Amino acid sequence: ARRRQLSVDEYVDGVLAGDRTIMGRAITLVESRNAEHRKLAQQILVKLLPHAGKAARVGITGVPGVGKSTFIEAMGKHLTGRDHKVAVLAVDPTSSRTGGSILGDKTRMNELAVDPNAFIRPSPSSGTLGGVTRTTRETMVIVEAAGYDVVLVETVGVGQSETMVSEMVDFFLVLMLPGAGDELQGIKKGVLEIADMIAVNKADADEKKARLAAREYRTALHIMTPASPNWTPPVLTCSALAGKGLAELWEKVDEHRTKLTESGELPARRRDQQLKWMWQMVRDQLMDALVEHPEVKHQLPEIEHAVAEGGLTPALATQQILQAFGVKFDV
Amino acid sequence: ARRRQLSVDEYVDGVLAGDRTIMGRAITLVESRNAEHRKLAQQILVKLLPHAGKAARVGITGVPGVGKSTFIEAMGKHLTGRDHKVAVLAVDPTSSRTGGSILGDKTRMNELAVDPNAFIRPSPSSGTLGGVTRTTRETMVIVEAAGYDVVLVETVGVGQSETMVSEMVDFFLVLMLPGAGDELQGIKKGVLEIADMIAVNKADADEKKARLAAREYRTALHIMTPASPNWTPPVLTCSALAGKGLAELWEKVDEHRTKLTESGELPARRRDQQLKWMWQMVRDQLMDALVEHPEVKHQLPEIEHAVAEGGLTPALATQQILQAFGVKFDV
Repeated sequence: ARRRQLSVDEYVDGVLAGDRTIMGRAITLVESRNAEHRKLAQQILVKLLPHAGKAARVGITGVPGVGKSTFIEAMGKHLTGRDHKVAVLAVDPTSSRTGGSILGDKTRMNELAVDPNAFIRPSPSSGTLGGVTRTTRETMVIVEAAGYDVVLVETVGVGQSETMVSEMVDFFLVLMLPGAGDELQGIKKGVLEIADMIAVNKADADEKKARLAAREYRTALHIMTPASPNWTPPVLTCSALAGKGLAELWEKVDEHRTKLTESGELPARRRDQQLKWMWQMVRDQLMDALVEHPEVKHQLPEIEHAVAEGGLTPALATQQILQAFGVKFDV
Repeated sequence: ARRRQLSVDEYVDGVLAGDRTIMGRAITLVESRNAEHRKLAQQILVKLLPHAGKAARVGITGVPGVGKSTFIEAMGKHLTGRDHKVAVLAVDPTSSRTGGSILGDKTRMNELAVDPNAFIRPSPSSGTLGGVTRTTRETMVIVEAAGYDVVLVETVGVGQSETMVSEMVDFFLVLMLPGAGDELQGIKKGVLEIADMIAVNKADADEKKARLAAREYRTALHIMTPASPNWTPPVLTCSALAGKGLAELWEKVDEHRTKLTESGELPARRRDQQLKWMWQMVRDQLMDALVEHPEVKHQLPEIEHAVAEGGLTPALATQQILQAFGVKFDV
């Protein structure tokens, strides 16, 4: 049976009332590839925007095997047990390739999935990283307007996904495995620099190793200039499986929020994130229009070949591409 | 007396013959803001391109006080003493603001400045970072075509200048000061990740401190995945003033070059750099055209305000901006 089409106001009222079915349907509109659906989604989002923005937004990443799902389930339960309403979203650009999806398998988060104060939404299983990022940002508006005061955004450590997530959250948490020396290798470039906190998970397995790992991460973080003058990223240990260290971790998130709200950095950061995101979309859409332009498409292979082989300067190549696109341009 | 205008072929022949006066004039054309000059420059560059690309391109950065000029002078002399021809260029986007310029004061490199096998060109003292980067890249073509087989590109640690330089060289060297603990703080975000080698300079002042610092940098580098499977960035100590450690440093540069040439990474990296640079210019020029468009200029303040204050979704704002620019666009 086909469901009755809801009006914009019915969507808005339903979301504001915390109706999980209507939230789900609104998110489906956001994720849709249908232009009409997406237009409707934008009308809903504009009305929800004034009600959004009150949640603590936390991004979470970690290497495979670090126990991200177990951690999110444990942290989610910890928070709903303290009267928080917790939404769990995901940015996984690989899901469109693999057909799988992080958070797709809700059995990975058995208890949280049935918690009335939790709302889990898997990463959309199709689309580019830019598309998935847009969807997750817009879904965040929906869950916040519905009254969720904690949004956890999980990401896989692939490509630019971590940077993208760090630019939609207030706090970026990096989960690490205990280990030392060579085992520590493999931290993705850029991750240390966007971390607001590192948590060495599975610390119960070998406490000494976990402490050693924490010390190495502290050294690495120590020699980098912190992003905020008011926050030095701490390195903690925890065990999601044993439920240890979760309260201490969340206290740090709270402390960060308090300090950066008082200093004015948090509201400024959020405004910057919105504008940066808008410009990112402008750039992406504009470049999409350029590479899809028939004349550019026609000339591009030859131009790129000439530049790669050293037969054409990049400046002249740029001139040719922009002329093909119809933009007047001086070298 | 006004100098006679040279033809494209006269410029090309002069540069290929290593004529320093003509090299200087060709670089002045590259740096010119005059459209005719720049058009002439592009005609010259296209003819020089097949003769360029044979030099070892090394980017050099370091915190203020690390002794960059002394280091470049010492390393330059070391190399010309071994029959290399050394060009020293610079990327300093601050010089347009301060009126000063790194390498501008040739007295900082007394000996190298009068060395017949060295060619020093200061950073152009005006222009955006993008403009200065373009100029330096194009100047590199000129000095390489003139037979300089080592190009050292100095940069100040400001904004994106280090990343920009790392994307035009084969090898990126980061100079550090000896010190430990708090003194190590202040490494710019991203610098550790683009370093192909770290050299702790002024090691003669306190060898123990220098070794301690080197160990901390090794730890920090160790936990990051190297950019190349064939190269783990080494951390060495040196003293440019005492002339110590320079031969060992350059051996590493040579070793890197040999390994990455054999593996095919170096030629691939250079092709990628050229194409990436072309696309960077396309994006920059296209966005320049957008923000300069009268209708975009007119609507932008209101759109940005609405997005920052949460009254408009970034997706709708993007639609409005692209429509103002005249690009057809679906949400």
